[in-house]
Amino acid sequence: MANRTDQLLRSAWTAEPPQLPPHALRWLRQETGLTDSWTPTRVMTAPPSELPEKAHEVLTAIVGAEHVLTDEQSRLGRTGGLSYLDLLAHKGIGDVSVPDAVVLPADPAEVAAVVKACAELGLSIVPFGGGTSVVGGVKAAERSVVLDLARLDRLVLVDEVSRLAVFQAGVRAPDAEKALAEYGLTLGHVPQSFERATIGGFAATRSAGQASSGYGRFEDMVEGVRVATARGEVRFGVAPASAAGPDLRHLMIGSEGAFGVITEVTVRVRPLPAIRRYEGFVVDGWDRGADVVRKLAQDRVLADVTRLSDVDETNVSFALTGGLKAAGLRAYLKARGINEPCMLIVGWEVQDRHELAMRRAATLRRLRGSVRLGRVLGEAWRHGRFNGPRQRDALMNAGVCVETLETATHWSQLNELYAKVRLALTDSLGRAIVMCHISHAYETGASLYFTVIAPRSIEDPAGQWKRAKAAACEAIAGLGTISHHHAVGVDHAPYLPAEIGDLGMEVLAAVKKTLDPSGILNPGKLIAP
Amino acid sequence: MANRTDQLLRSAWTAEPPQLPPHALRWLRQETGLTDSWTPTRVMTAPPSELPEKAHEVLTAIVGAEHVLTDEQSRLGRTGGLSYLDLLAHKGIGDVSVPDAVVLPADPAEVAAVVKACAELGLSIVPFGGGTSVVGGVKAAERSVVLDLARLDRLVLVDEVSRLAVFQAGVRAPDAEKALAEYGLTLGHVPQSFERATIGGFAATRSAGQASSGYGRFEDMVEGVRVATARGEVRFGVAPASAAGPDLRHLMIGSEGAFGVITEVTVRVRPLPAIRRYEGFVVDGWDRGADVVRKLAQDRVLADVTRLSDVDETNVSFALTGGLKAAGLRAYLKARGINEPCMLIVGWEVQDRHELAMRRAATLRRLRGSVRLGRVLGEAWRHGRFNGPRQRDALMNAGVCVETLETATHWSQLNELYAKVRLALTDSLGRAIVMCHISHAYETGASLYFTVIAPRSIEDPAGQWKRAKAAACEAIAGLGTISHHHAVGVDHAPYLPAEIGDLGMEVLAAVKKTLDPSGILNPGKLIAP
Repeated sequence: MANRTDQLLRSAWTAEPPQLPPHALRWLRQETGLTDSWTPTRVMTAPPSELPEKAHEVLTAIVGAEHVLTDEQSRLGRTGGLSYLDLLAHKGIGDVSVPDAVVLPADPAEVAAVVKACAELGLSIVPFGGGTSVVGGVKAAERSVVLDLARLDRLVLVDEVSRLAVFQAGVRAPDAEKALAEYGLTLGHVPQSFERATIGGFAATRSAGQASSGYGRFEDMVEGVRVATARGEVRFGVAPASAAGPDLRHLMIGSEGAFGVITEVTVRVRPLPAIRRYEGFVVDGWDRGADVVRKLAQDRVLADVTRLSDVDETNVSFALTGGLKAAGLRAYLKARGINEPCMLIVGWEVQDRHELAMRRAATLRRLRGSVRLGRVLGEAWRHGRFNGPRQRDALMNAGVCVETLETATHWSQLNELYAKVRLALTDSLGRAIVMCHISHAYETGASLYFTVIAPRSIEDPAGQWKRAKAAACEAIAGLGTISHHHAVGVDHAPYLPAEIGDLGMEVLAAVKKTLDPSGILNPGKLIAP
Repeated sequence: MANRTDQLLRSAWTAEPPQLPPHALRWLRQETGLTDSWTPTRVMTAPPSELPEKAHEVLTAIVGAEHVLTDEQSRLGRTGGLSYLDLLAHKGIGDVSVPDAVVLPADPAEVAAVVKACAELGLSIVPFGGGTSVVGGVKAAERSVVLDLARLDRLVLVDEVSRLAVFQAGVRAPDAEKALAEYGLTLGHVPQSFERATIGGFAATRSAGQASSGYGRFEDMVEGVRVATARGEVRFGVAPASAAGPDLRHLMIGSEGAFGVITEVTVRVRPLPAIRRYEGFVVDGWDRGADVVRKLAQDRVLADVTRLSDVDETNVSFALTGGLKAAGLRAYLKARGINEPCMLIVGWEVQDRHELAMRRAATLRRLRGSVRLGRVLGEAWRHGRFNGPRQRDALMNAGVCVETLETATHWSQLNELYAKVRLALTDSLGRAIVMCHISHAYETGASLYFTVIAPRSIEDPAGQWKRAKAAACEAIAGLGTISHHHAVGVDHAPYLPAEIGDLGMEVLAAVKKTLDPSGILNPGKLIAP
């Protein structure tokens, strides 16, 4: 399993760097003033491990010598996640902390033993699942060990009557789906991190997938959690719903490894859809598009995937398909009265043609005035939907500052939040492309997901983004949540007090103190030091 | 507003006692061996208020002299809720604690000031909304004041775009619906306590209404909460969904006044349904009925109200309609192959005939083999659905031990839980009628709601029920949740540790310690002393 992780890590950081197609590069240079010069990069190196001899012995006794790794490659591969800043660090730009060791326990009992031992040793632990955090959630701490959950890779139990499955935390999403498919079941949780992310990570970060309108957010799927804390194991969730006091599952979901290490998750599963149908539409203007999505949500006829791009994101999508095609598409839309094209992807995952017909008709009734671009666009989006990280690698290799951030708010504040975050980003970054989409809609509000592309600063690439991100976070404070589905990590920790108040922070700290008295669990995440 | 509360309280406890119709009384005597003799009751009296002079001054300064009540009637009216044990206490059977005063703040700011002042005075507070707790959730403590939220009766804000409404905590459900109806909106939360219960109480107890399949549990409706803690105010919830750490709304929902006093709740609202259609069916046998409900839930075509009674509950329903009619109905069903009649009520609340037709067809397809009893039965249930408490009063006046309890679990464990709780109750109570229904179904499981009718013990009426309840709670432990929608209060507090573990209890205690350091907020509730 460790090899599997390393293989995935290698593919992210050391494989042949992906390149942008020439037409995309030309277009970027024209739009953003991108040039050929950028900060030279260097290979990251690790200082020698300073894992105390005693700790090595104790950990080896629990997990076996072959599962306590102190070599450079294993430690370098787990210094952080996949944020722009993490990727810069891997190019030698900015500081990184390298853990002293990577520990790979075999099962929940070994995880519990490792956590207990580290608490006694006073050794910090950074839990590591898929390593896909984009908010510094798996940033290694100084003098820490990374607890890699890759070996907790079992589907423990399927209860077909109750439509429940118990997974160990380290099961990756594609493996979970493969195991469930043998029972004709699916989880239906498909965030962009799908290819690498783990069940435990989904729970720890309160994840939401692209099909959240249909399958729910990950928290909606969690029936129970098993967590190894520094004071022992806890298990929450004995029924689909309960009024037995505050729902403590919700304290563990989103706890980001700061209260304990999630080792097992009981999730609700559904029958595999017999039919998947994705279609593309174009709506005229962002405001009108958002109104359509709101109407679909409030009439409770949302497709399972519903995703509205703003004009800039739509134009970039068109541009990346190639100049000529894009020009033809724009002319076609103009002739149909669409001046500000906003792409809308809707996807249904259903059991039969009857259900599809019913639900599709309900959507189409509310899409009058939009232009249908058909299944080709829908399917193209579906097949390319995990490509974001690879596209980002290509953009980074072309010298681009590229990152995403997201938030959510009530419908009545959505446009104000949209405008303010856009303004904050463009003010900070100068000649940048700022794109946005709504990918998660609710009756009372929606998420906003921004993607930023700008020429990378040569003098201070990390600072360039840190300033832009800070400006966006300040624009969000008071209007929306600091994160709709990426979690807090290190990057959002300074902004959490504004959202939940000082007393809210004290509550989190009190829970942490109870479950992690010596503060060894994922230090600096969720709660700023 | 105090008068309004008193009026409601009087109607519960001092109005002309309701009587059972003669045929029902005959039937009960025959089934349970009920006789005419029972424990004599006496009128409850209150010791004089011992509110310290200093406290009286401080509270008067905050809320005004006319809103600090120390008279006997006001204090006696707020000694507890509406459980069987509470009602016995009101007949002079068993012990009661009477508060020293009732304080009625005008708004969230005054609530915050009262809580702060009481923390400084070391004076315990029992928050009191509708006073409908059936688990001892509003049981008065010795040397305490009751904080009655009746004056927090405002609809603060309606955001029609976001479909959100902000209510003060003391707004009663019927008043909330009346205020929303002016906007063409509804909350759709209709627990049996509807007529008296409050918005704040729904949140504090993690309530679920009879139409939870359609409108969701109350926690699904809560977008935000404002809470006055002993350390200051907190507000949680800025967006429909968030990944900004653990969802602290879920710490306040179900906190039962032990962490703070909920003063405002932001709730999701929906358009008033244009059509309400309720129908009755009879399914042959509990197992088959439960399978039908499971199928409806797992195929995600549940009606907004879906309620399956077991054979005993169905027979009681039939019997109470009158002997002759009941015999005719049984013969009619027998002729149609129904030997073990289980009544199934399904109700849709929809916007138009098209939606009704679609959804009704989806339900009916899955109800093949059942017998349709039509809209009369459905509407009869709908119109009588808040009668439970009045029927209970009549039963109590006839010398009956009558109480309900509820739980929930996964589908695969439902029948085991059903059998074990039934057995525990009948073993403990002897010649009793134990009835059950499923009123809340989920994809992964369902609730079980038991009603018990037995001849009341003459020697020890309170002990009789306490022993039966303890037996049921022990049967539930390890198989289901100790409460699906009635909360913990005093009665379930001893069983919570088995459900969430000692560490879970420590987490709750740590949160309480943070927000209520001197332990003045609703002592003994949620967390056993």
